[in-house]
Amino acid sequence: MIAELPGWLPRSPRTLVGIGDDAAVLATPDGRVVATTDFLLEGQHFRRDTSSARDVGHKAAARSLADVAAMGAVPSALLVALAAPADLPVSWVRELAAGLAAECARVPGASVIGGDTARAAGVMLAVTGLGDLAGRAPVLRSGAAPGDVVAVAGPLGHAAAGLALLSAGITEGPLVTAQRRPAPPYDAGPQAADLGATAMIDISDGLLADLGHIADSSGVLIDVSGAALSPGDPLIAAARAVGSAALEWVLTGGEDHSLVATFPPGVPLPPRWKAIGTVRPGQGVVVDSRPWEHASGWDHFA
Amino acid sequence: MIAELPGWLPRSPRTLVGIGDDAAVLATPDGRVVATTDFLLEGQHFRRDTSSARDVGHKAAARSLADVAAMGAVPSALLVALAAPADLPVSWVRELAAGLAAECARVPGASVIGGDTARAAGVMLAVTGLGDLAGRAPVLRSGAAPGDVVAVAGPLGHAAAGLALLSAGITEGPLVTAQRRPAPPYDAGPQAADLGATAMIDISDGLLADLGHIADSSGVLIDVSGAALSPGDPLIAAARAVGSAALEWVLTGGEDHSLVATFPPGVPLPPRWKAIGTVRPGQGVVVDSRPWEHASGWDHFA
Repeated sequence: MIAELPGWLPRSPRTLVGIGDDAAVLATPDGRVVATTDFLLEGQHFRRDTSSARDVGHKAAARSLADVAAMGAVPSALLVALAAPADLPVSWVRELAAGLAAECARVPGASVIGGDTARAAGVMLAVTGLGDLAGRAPVLRSGAAPGDVVAVAGPLGHAAAGLALLSAGITEGPLVTAQRRPAPPYDAGPQAADLGATAMIDISDGLLADLGHIADSSGVLIDVSGAALSPGDPLIAAARAVGSAALEWVLTGGEDHSLVATFPPGVPLPPRWKAIGTVRPGQGVVVDSRPWEHASGWDHFA
Repeated sequence: MIAELPGWLPRSPRTLVGIGDDAAVLATPDGRVVATTDFLLEGQHFRRDTSSARDVGHKAAARSLADVAAMGAVPSALLVALAAPADLPVSWVRELAAGLAAECARVPGASVIGGDTARAAGVMLAVTGLGDLAGRAPVLRSGAAPGDVVAVAGPLGHAAAGLALLSAGITEGPLVTAQRRPAPPYDAGPQAADLGATAMIDISDGLLADLGHIADSSGVLIDVSGAALSPGDPLIAAARAVGSAALEWVLTGGEDHSLVATFPPGVPLPPRWKAIGTVRPGQGVVVDSRPWEHASGWDHFA
């Protein structure tokens, strides 16, 4: 199986040495490399009975690629460590590789350049994402300033709605797909950097929780507008179907890996960046100037 | 605990953005980055009852740093993904971080720049190593040519002997330490590249198994000399103590992460690089021109 892996994973021109040696060699023409590692663990981040191997490949890639994009960088490569039970079918691994490759293909020039394999009781992935800033300054969590506009690119609450639908036995539809295969707007990351974004993060834990990281790092208060976040019809319909609150998904649902950023006042935002709030002196995150009274997302280590 | 992690891990000057943002940013002045990922899993690669958290940190770092060195590069950074049971003491993680940092300190300029945490039934690490070639061509597995000299830097069979001693209830001594904390000769990697090494690999699976990777990739036969590999007194004494064959440890013991390389004939080798064989036309690996008749190392996915 290991011998076949390289054939399942297309190679990009920036890969100077690919899978099969002690290490890979990747071109980093900028003179800097952006690097992040994320787990994707069976039972915590996906279930094999509700996600296909291809879904898992998409999702594993998306988590790391979105982190790279959230720095304002263009993702360039993944390293994939896969631990799996002895009885995992080879076809499952082939489909996983197809999902990884397909998600990489959403970013021109990105590919899987290396990894490792081991045995474990469940399927466990640890994916490292690398990326190129192409001369840009990295966009940190710490640069938001009072007066900045808060804007989001990509959907909010879709993956959380999909998880609720799956739990209710509804296994098809766009929201369920958003849970199985989040589709982060990778190119919005470098775009935000070029627009002068002062801070950025990808929404993995939930909008309020991740804005909380920006507020804490930047020493500011972030006030989001409930009206700007009013859920669309599909989310409202899903909430009705399962007896949940759609706005709760929007504010606290994680795993969409959409990007949220702060921009200096007066920056003309392209349509994909939707203004949802403002930065003010203070600390914490509020909705319409009031604390949000429900749980604010998902804390991995709680 | 996550909030305290950065304080346990010293930061190097090449780390432009360190732990705590969506991703790290590392300087790669060469315009290329070497990258590798390796698992270190409880029960397979270490046991918490025979290795301390600090040992595990050393070993986890060593596996990835050695892979980087085996490309002829200087290791520059690690990303560490740690999954652990809920009841793992914080002190264990602090000691793990101390071991990671101490092993990084064996390479000037290397440090932990990022990672991830998650829950799991056992302790699982996935460590990504990054490195800088500083203008060198990467040394691959595929460049060995007939006439080349095979040479090794670092110990052979020590970690395997240490494992056998541990299994026999002997818990102290240099060989046991070599199992708990292999100390790869990282700087021998770039040195070999500068000397014109044609192929190189780190010995993680065993000398014969890893030379087999070079032989396969290069399309050559490698003939190692039994006399050049005769075990030292400590190994012979350990073999007597546990009823094993010391030469078997030397030829097939993995986990020392020593480096083995091939050099063009006539290259004057520094003393740390010990000539142990020659490259010839053909295929496979032989000892004194004959196939070795015991198991040839450790196959992770067998």
